Amino acid sequence: MYQDLKKRVWEANLKLVEYGLVILTFGNVSEVDRKSGVIAIKPSGVAYDQMKPEDMVVLDLEGRQVEGTLQPSSDTATHLHLYREFPQIGGIAHAHSQFATAFAQAGLEIPCLGTTQADFCPGPVPITRMLTENEVTSDYELSTGKVIVERFEQLDPGHYPACLVSGHGPFAWGKSGLEAVENLILLETIAGMAATTLQINPGATELEPYLIRKHFERKHGPRAYYGQRKEK
Amino acid sequence: MYQDLKKRVWEANLKLVEYGLVILTFGNVSEVDRKSGVIAIKPSGVAYDQMKPEDMVVLDLEGRQVEGTLQPSSDTATHLHLYREFPQIGGIAHAHSQFATAFAQAGLEIPCLGTTQADFCPGPVPITRMLTENEVTSDYELSTGKVIVERFEQLDPGHYPACLVSGHGPFAWGKSGLEAVENLILLETIAGMAATTLQINPGATELEPYLIRKHFERKHGPRAYYGQRKEK
Amino acid sequence: MYQDLKKRVWEANLKLVEYGLVILTFGNVSEVDRKSGVIAIKPSGVAYDQMKPEDMVVLDLEGRQVEGTLQPSSDTATHLHLYREFPQIGGIAHAHSQFATAFAQAGLEIPCLGTTQADFCPGPVPITRMLTENEVTSDYELSTGKVIVERFEQLDPGHYPACLVSGHGPFAWGKSGLEAVENLILLETIAGMAATTLQINPGATELEPYLIRKHFERKHGPRAYYGQRKEK
Amino acid sequence: MYQDLKKRVWEANLKLVEYGLVILTFGNVSEVDRKSGVIAIKPSGVAYDQMKPEDMVVLDLEGRQVEGTLQPSSDTATHLHLYREFPQIGGIAHAHSQFATAFAQAGLEIPCLGTTQADFCPGPVPITRMLTENEVTSDYELSTGKVIVERFEQLDPGHYPACLVSGHGPFAWGKSGLEAVENLILLETIAGMAATTLQINPGATELEPYLIRKHFERKHGPRAYYGQRKEK
Repeated sequence: MYQDLKKRVWEANLKLVEYGLVILTFGNVSEVDRKSGVIAIKPSGVAYDQMKPEDMVVLDLEGRQVEGTLQPSSDTATHLHLYREFPQIGGIAHAHSQFATAFAQAGLEIPCLGTTQADFCPGPVPITRMLTENEVTSDYELSTGKVIVERFEQLDPGHYPACLVSGHGPFAWGKSGLEAVENLILLETIAGMAATTLQINPGATELEPYLIRKHFERKHGPRAYYGQRKEK
Repeated sequence: MYQDLKKRVWEANLKLVEYGLVILTFGNVSEVDRKSGVIAIKPSGVAYDQMKPEDMVVLDLEGRQVEGTLQPSSDTATHLHLYREFPQIGGIAHAHSQFATAFAQAGLEIPCLGTTQADFCPGPVPITRMLTENEVTSDYELSTGKVIVERFEQLDPGHYPACLVSGHGPFAWGKSGLEAVENLILLETIAGMAATTLQINPGATELEPYLIRKHFERKHGPRAYYGQRKEK
Repeated sequence: MYQDLKKRVWEANLKLVEYGLVILTFGNVSEVDRKSGVIAIKPSGVAYDQMKPEDMVVLDLEGRQVEGTLQPSSDTATHLHLYREFPQIGGIAHAHSQFATAFAQAGLEIPCLGTTQADFCPGPVPITRMLTENEVTSDYELSTGKVIVERFEQLDPGHYPACLVSGHGPFAWGKSGLEAVENLILLETIAGMAATTLQINPGATELEPYLIRKHFERKHGPRAYYGQRKEK
Repeated sequence: MYQDLKKRVWEANLKLVEYGLVILTFGNVSEVDRKSGVIAIKPSGVAYDQMKPEDMVVLDLEGRQVEGTLQPSSDTATHLHLYREFPQIGGIAHAHSQFATAFAQAGLEIPCLGTTQADFCPGPVPITRMLTENEVTSDYELSTGKVIVERFEQLDPGHYPACLVSGHGPFAWGKSGLEAVENLILLETIAGMAATTLQINPGATELEPYLIRKHFERKHGPRAYYGQRKEK
């Protein structure tokens, strides 16, 4: 069962390799089937070039394994919590890509320094607070999901398709696993540009709100005019 | 009609991918046919590996669509304004490449720190002022073209084949779409060198005017002696 | 004799090229056969694309050449000393990769700024003291091994799979030559992230000890739950 | 005539592309045949993928074209002066590679921060003074050669296989065109490591003279023991 779902998740995981976002067994992508109430996710610690579609692990939203003999990604509890709390998302991608992870390690949100980022989200890329000792020792991966949700109390996950986890790295999401990976690629590009911008000019300032709004609405929402109508 | 023009523009767009200047559907290249008074440009939001020559959109210089069923690039109005105001140019390329975009986001022109840049243009790579709120909300893409033209009031677009748009990214041009892409590649190389130079020595100074002039005139203009005579 | 050992060492050396850790004839990987009391190591100054499995040099742990007509790597005495002093290691890899070498040249350990590093080792990546003139002129490569062992007086080489040699570069180890190379790849990734983190935020702080412990123990030791059980 | 020489120079030029040191028509490599008193050099402004061995231009040491219908590299006079003044060198390579050029633009020699550089040359990579206006306007390319030679008044070009030209970029040399390219690759690697080291630790100090000497003599000169004896 869930052949299509597993194949799509497998393909989305391989995109992480193609775009240079992961090395060795790093990173993971999942996708949810809202009707069936299950997700498929990469197995833990398996090399990308040896992974097959049938190796993807299927679980229900409470974490009970429904299909697959391998252990799911060690970050599964984070994915599940995000699917439960953000009903509008269909896929999640996580990787320790160089520049986005560097901002997470620096403990800084990514300031919106240009229109490339404004095309992606209408402001800085958010970062969570650091987890407490109790959160880390009791249920670490679930706590990671919770701290992301906490950070989004005032933010719309439909507008901000990614969050940095402090001291850890980025999680991105989208309508599908593939769109989640594309958002992770965009995030890494934006993070690289921001790092270079701050190297050139440590005092670089954020874009004016009217220009952020313009670019974001050009690409997203009811007045969007970027792309082809039939693809909307 | 315009098969040759569309094929050339398609090929020039693919060069953006080959040289790593774009990811996903970013960037766009156009070329003008001055005799027929039309341009061909990349369609908006279409993936490079799925794009065919016949997908290129043909418009007249006032922006009326002459051929093609897809929507043209969302930056089309910027391209058209530059073709109307800079009669010496034949092609335009735009991409959010990392280093040139970082200078645009830093709000700084690229200082002429070495002969690599002097081979490209006889001074700093210019940057526009930031667009006003009114310019952004009324006719954003046309205003982007206008602010580039305004920046070139005292500059010759035949000598300076690129401009950074503040907070946005680079536009480059040339005699053809392909030459515009080559100029974008050169610009990205120059921007990367300048960023690294400033990292090593934040107090690095601009090249002496006599050395800038020498290098620029060695490669461009009546006394040029770089390259092969028959290719001039 | 030792065909399997030589083939494994040859393959592990080629991984250095595949992952971009070496150029020209730089770098070297070895593996020990504890039962037979021999190691196989890359020959000195031979190009990777011309190297064959039978070119690997076999020596006993005192450095007597047992097989092979080529000269062993000039760093052989360093490898041998580490095999003699660290009985738990099975393979060693050395390369002048950009970021790890930059920390070695900077004379700084790599601070543990995020969970990517905590997955690798439970603290900063250690760096040796600088060798004295006498150590350099008398028996340089042996002294390099000794100064690493000295740095590990209070550290477990089973927990810290790499060391930076001050002013020189990284040595990494693991259960096999291949695992040593994988640890060198991880080290280079970690070093690159740390360099970028410090560029973005020179005041970035180390991860809390409880989070370092959590990530390290998630991946290593008796309570590890990363990866597949059968692979343990 | 000179088929072998032209083929070797053509191959050495293509190495510049393979190692990512050049884009478009940048860069050039030459080799001298001391017996015949001629050099072969890349033609000016020709694309690497269209260049054939027979396109290489052959000139005598005074610059008289002996073979070939294309114009030689615009930097030919620099190459010729170095061949006349440095009798021990057999090939020269020039490229505007990112990191070495950044040091040239920064107006700084590359400090010897680690053993990777000490393997290459026994001290900082030298940089010329800036050319005067008169030197630039009278005979620019010859003056570039002269200012390199001037910088080497107290240095042995057999020990220091490269020089940065202030505000311009690196020239490297060796026993052949291919060795000159390899030295340019090493120089670029060293320059990248030095830039990263200075980013991490702006106060990083040069290696102790005894360690520089050790590494340089391990690889070069009568007591060298790196590499295979038969290859010496």
